[in-house]
Amino acid sequence: MKILGIEHVGIAVDDLTSATPFWELLLKDCNKYSEKVEDQKVNTKIFDTEQGKIELLEATTDDSPIAKFITKKGRGIHHICLQVENIDEVISELAQAGILMIDQQPRIGTEGYKIAFVHPKSTGGVLVELAEKQ
Amino acid sequence: MKILGIEHVGIAVDDLTSATPFWELLLKDCNKYSEKVEDQKVNTKIFDTEQGKIELLEATTDDSPIAKFITKKGRGIHHICLQVENIDEVISELAQAGILMIDQQPRIGTEGYKIAFVHPKSTGGVLVELAEKQ
Repeated sequence: MKILGIEHVGIAVDDLTSATPFWELLLKDCNKYSEKVEDQKVNTKIFDTEQGKIELLEATTDDSPIAKFITKKGRGIHHICLQVENIDEVISELAQAGILMIDQQPRIGTEGYKIAFVHPKSTGGVLVELAEKQ
Repeated sequence: MKILGIEHVGIAVDDLTSATPFWELLLKDCNKYSEKVEDQKVNTKIFDTEQGKIELLEATTDDSPIAKFITKKGRGIHHICLQVENIDEVISELAQAGILMIDQQPRIGTEGYKIAFVHPKSTGGVLVELAEKQ
């Protein structure tokens, strides 16, 4: 399996408006865009440094994974996403090694990538997203 | 100020031995190295994807920032480090904008970089490290 690098770091925020100023200041020269991801019940604001993105995540419903995360752990870094060359191959190799996957099959995530999450139980408490650009 | 991208993501682990297998499997083709950082009371294991590093952090003492973090929040992602072109310039611009810095002046961190931490109070709960390669 081939891992290409850190695609983004996802950050759970209470709301995009109050969370954005620091990142707007620090990453003012980055390409920026927003997206609503219905499937994951989040609004995103993405800052692309061209060497990894910062993805701010705001819950759109009380049962959004981001709302649950903030209730349990507070605001902050939610997950890390690694870009892979072939997501089916990576899922298969991890599963064969006994790694617990949240997604056994890839689904479509932010920016239309094929994504799958690895369960934090198998990673030392880190929510790891795998993403293949199509 | 110029931000070059995500330098690494720091992950707090109970111990490197038990935490490493998942990352060893996933990042088996990456360049790997270890370093003890006396100043921060951690042992590190670093996996370089060449598009951002994963830095595992094990406390060497009970009063290490990593030990305190695990007691408070549990194992998992501890901080994100952004590579900058000129760290003095970035610290100055952030401070002028009222952003609270943990380090008002850069100090020497992992791999000999000039580093400074931004206080999570000013970032929405995220511990942000800035690093300039020398």
